[in-house]
Amino acid sequence: MLITPETTKIGWVGTGVMGHSMCRHLMDAGFQVSLYSRTRDKAADLIAAGATWCDSPKDVAQASDVVFAIVGMPSDVREVFLSDQGVLAGCQPGNIVVDMTTSEPQLAIEIADAARAREVHSVDAPVSGGDVGAKAGTLSIMIGGDSAVVAALEPCWKAMGKTYVRQGQAGSGQHAKIVNQILVAAGMIGVCESLLYAQQSGLDLETVLKSVSSGAAGSWALSNLAPRIVSGHFDPGFFVDHFVKDLGIAMQESKRMSLNLPGLELACELYERVVARGDGQLGTHALQMTLAEMSELTWAPTTAQAK
Amino acid sequence: MLITPETTKIGWVGTGVMGHSMCRHLMDAGFQVSLYSRTRDKAADLIAAGATWCDSPKDVAQASDVVFAIVGMPSDVREVFLSDQGVLAGCQPGNIVVDMTTSEPQLAIEIADAARAREVHSVDAPVSGGDVGAKAGTLSIMIGGDSAVVAALEPCWKAMGKTYVRQGQAGSGQHAKIVNQILVAAGMIGVCESLLYAQQSGLDLETVLKSVSSGAAGSWALSNLAPRIVSGHFDPGFFVDHFVKDLGIAMQESKRMSLNLPGLELACELYERVVARGDGQLGTHALQMTLAEMSELTWAPTTAQAK
Repeated sequence: MLITPETTKIGWVGTGVMGHSMCRHLMDAGFQVSLYSRTRDKAADLIAAGATWCDSPKDVAQASDVVFAIVGMPSDVREVFLSDQGVLAGCQPGNIVVDMTTSEPQLAIEIADAARAREVHSVDAPVSGGDVGAKAGTLSIMIGGDSAVVAALEPCWKAMGKTYVRQGQAGSGQHAKIVNQILVAAGMIGVCESLLYAQQSGLDLETVLKSVSSGAAGSWALSNLAPRIVSGHFDPGFFVDHFVKDLGIAMQESKRMSLNLPGLELACELYERVVARGDGQLGTHALQMTLAEMSELTWAPTTAQAK
Repeated sequence: MLITPETTKIGWVGTGVMGHSMCRHLMDAGFQVSLYSRTRDKAADLIAAGATWCDSPKDVAQASDVVFAIVGMPSDVREVFLSDQGVLAGCQPGNIVVDMTTSEPQLAIEIADAARAREVHSVDAPVSGGDVGAKAGTLSIMIGGDSAVVAALEPCWKAMGKTYVRQGQAGSGQHAKIVNQILVAAGMIGVCESLLYAQQSGLDLETVLKSVSSGAAGSWALSNLAPRIVSGHFDPGFFVDHFVKDLGIAMQESKRMSLNLPGLELACELYERVVARGDGQLGTHALQMTLAEMSELTWAPTTAQAK
């Protein structure tokens, strides 16, 4: 199984915040791409750059050897892969389908079973790194699927990510992503609570970030999201609505495994409040405003450089 | 105010896990050191390497121009600096005292006031980075005090830390450290819950760490403590008992400022359970065992390389 820009036609479904940049990287690597997206406008510049528009995921699959998708909810994944106009309906034996959406491990297994029945290979490969990582091509890609197939896809992983690790069979990429989101959720709570404390104790926020970013408290979130919070910018990044979906999957799986994860549970509660506040279309760091309100405060950073 | 190994005699109080390495770095930088520690044995090799033993913090101060201390609880800090046999009792006008213990912001202000009455300069300078950072001289030092004094101490900060940032007047180093510990606490919950999830979902722990360490979930704790958890090593590092003290100070200050920080509150509850389990003298990552028990599991990592 050889995958190269010269021999392999790529399909892409979903050109949102993440998918748009990821698809672009495959095109930049020389791959010919056929694509479908729910909102055609979001793919306009990719089409202008040479991608071929298709009217359905099925059409994408019929024009491709390997089809990637990154969409919204598990219900979207189900429709994109398993419906009449879905990817699998358009696949030939030997094709590969790759779901990069963060979705349910059990659904990944279901798609892999359905694919196998058509002699198609299925891989789940959710990502971490946010819009920044998608743009820079530095995502961490967590992969579940047959090892030979995962290895053959290396030119694609390489184009989109800096880290790509096979975690095991179908579904294990999704499990690894849940591990990731449990970490992200706890980290986000820490970042927001610590900034609120810093503000109330009279510290200069940018100065305190210099101190805490490089020690035992250091994290990707602190380095990348805290500065956005300090400057009062809450654009996504990564949508609260999608994160709430991820946390819901994490809770559902944890309950299924009889795990008691109080930090995850707290994160679910807090992010439901963020949605209730009307901030679902902001970035995950918008938790800051909800958290401030829980102390009857308004988030108004005091740092000299806040814009 | 010029501080150099040739002109400045250093005093050191407290040679525990952190203080021992930090004092050693000052000696390695050429400073002559007089020291006192509650347990003399812990200072034996520093004495063998040329440090002078003193019988009290007061005696240390009488032999020194600049006195550093890093001890346990705020009550210890109070005794070391403010008692009859304490540091300030042995100081001359123009001396500098530096408390590097994580302690109460209000106590730092109280010591600074008492010092000022004796024409002594006081600085609070708690650190982050754990035993690893103390040994490597890569600590982050969070500093509160007069800017000229803090600047003069640069040769000392440089010997012990990689990052040293003045946060403001007396007490602000302690506030910054609380910011740090709020981050650390949330991060530790995330690391432990995510590893428990990973274990139960059947992932290989070392493989999943490869995926999640480099993306949006990445953190110092994940890179430095998760491997210890995976290999079942729970030695401190940083003692649970000390962390519970820090979290207590953080809660106390948060309440004083009418802040509602549910993540910090959860961390306090969880770490009280860790102490109740009898793990107070283990490292902070020992939370893993308590957390596993809360799901009626035993922490028995499944990774191939667990030792």
